[in-house]
Amino acid sequence: MSRLPSHAEGKGHLAIVGLGPGKKEYMTGRALDVIAEAGVVLGHGTYLEPIQSLLSGKQVISSSMGKEVDRARQAIGLAKTQRVAIVSGGDPGVYGMASIVLEVLEHDGADIEVEIVPGVTAATAAASRAGSPLSGDYATISLSDLLTPIEVIEKRLDTVFSLGIPVVLYNPKSRGRPHNLAIAVSHARHHLAGTTPVAIVKNALREDEQVIITTLEEIEDHADKVDMHSVVIIGGAESRIWRRGDDVRGIITPRGYHKKYVY
Amino acid sequence: MSRLPSHAEGKGHLAIVGLGPGKKEYMTGRALDVIAEAGVVLGHGTYLEPIQSLLSGKQVISSSMGKEVDRARQAIGLAKTQRVAIVSGGDPGVYGMASIVLEVLEHDGADIEVEIVPGVTAATAAASRAGSPLSGDYATISLSDLLTPIEVIEKRLDTVFSLGIPVVLYNPKSRGRPHNLAIAVSHARHHLAGTTPVAIVKNALREDEQVIITTLEEIEDHADKVDMHSVVIIGGAESRIWRRGDDVRGIITPRGYHKKYVY
Repeated sequence: MSRLPSHAEGKGHLAIVGLGPGKKEYMTGRALDVIAEAGVVLGHGTYLEPIQSLLSGKQVISSSMGKEVDRARQAIGLAKTQRVAIVSGGDPGVYGMASIVLEVLEHDGADIEVEIVPGVTAATAAASRAGSPLSGDYATISLSDLLTPIEVIEKRLDTVFSLGIPVVLYNPKSRGRPHNLAIAVSHARHHLAGTTPVAIVKNALREDEQVIITTLEEIEDHADKVDMHSVVIIGGAESRIWRRGDDVRGIITPRGYHKKYVY
Repeated sequence: MSRLPSHAEGKGHLAIVGLGPGKKEYMTGRALDVIAEAGVVLGHGTYLEPIQSLLSGKQVISSSMGKEVDRARQAIGLAKTQRVAIVSGGDPGVYGMASIVLEVLEHDGADIEVEIVPGVTAATAAASRAGSPLSGDYATISLSDLLTPIEVIEKRLDTVFSLGIPVVLYNPKSRGRPHNLAIAVSHARHHLAGTTPVAIVKNALREDEQVIITTLEEIEDHADKVDMHSVVIIGGAESRIWRRGDDVRGIITPRGYHKKYVY
């Protein structure tokens, strides 16, 4: 069982495309190219809106959040005869469309060529606006309990916080689950000091971007700012606030060079 | 302590730029732009080579691996008066140049405008070549013990594998640490079945790319293929090999849609 995952020769072609944080300038050239080559583009309306200028002359199928299975099935059906691009925010392989499309394709059995185009994932897009909070080892955990039971999420949170590595929280809050962020913070506080830095990054590298640098003990003061367009980064045991004079510039999680070098 | 990390008005400008996996087509437009605008570009030779065509007319300072602190100090010195780009493979905020540059800048105290340009990180670049092995919650752990003691790495490995979430191993093997991958696999086997899928992705989205889909119990047969240009993805408890007939196409880590929907 050692071989390249070969892409079978189908008539059509299905690209599962990561758009990155949202603005066109943060897309890769490859993402632009496969969208240009596609006859049909499918995606959630939120992700299609910023790339409207790339879609003229194409069949565009916009659908709503929560319709991922239908969208995947439709994309596969169309890709049996056409060049199709199904778009996903960030990277399609992380809380994106790749897994559900491949699951449906596996079940369907169709002989379709598939290309997954990676994109700048929300974790690193958010981190880039908050200094260098991740830097090395880290974990990403979604607080959405739509597909994962809250008990499983809590176990994961408790365990990764116990390691003292930075943790990126996806889907930190929405109308259906307003308390999950407070639950996550309470697990973090079992293992980390109240002064541990936290970044709330809303609309990273998009319109209406907002970056809040705070701490575990003060995050409650800002919890109303957190929404479904936000990513929350909880620093690790070694993370610190990066200041210049009184100016808060971000978070630094050092990688350990200071133990080996003088600077 | 609630504010945007303001970028002070210095004379120069320092961009810490993620190049993504290596080929130009996987860079973002923003990365291309800041390199075009820079008068000076610094980086490790490996990362500068694929972007040679972008560097004509610029001062180019190529340095070796292991000289990160010197390179950071030099970039900051130059950025006091010039537009400087310091490049990093993948995303600069993940095992990249961002943390060390910010640490040196914090210590230096210079009033320099800094922009971190995120890139496609090695974890998701590799994942995109192996199906959808990450899909949801995951952890990234580097096996390099240059900056982190091996005991700390082992504790992290054991703990994240215990959760049954996929784990991305960076720096899985090099001449100085040939046994760390075997150590990681042995921790994985304490918690996961031998049939758990594993992807070895070498030179993801670069020349000489190689993707091997195997399992925890068979990875030893392929361990000689793993080098410092590889990323190893150990699937989670729910990951499975994605096949079409006898053809191995990759790994799927389902997100749980199958529990809610019929397809």
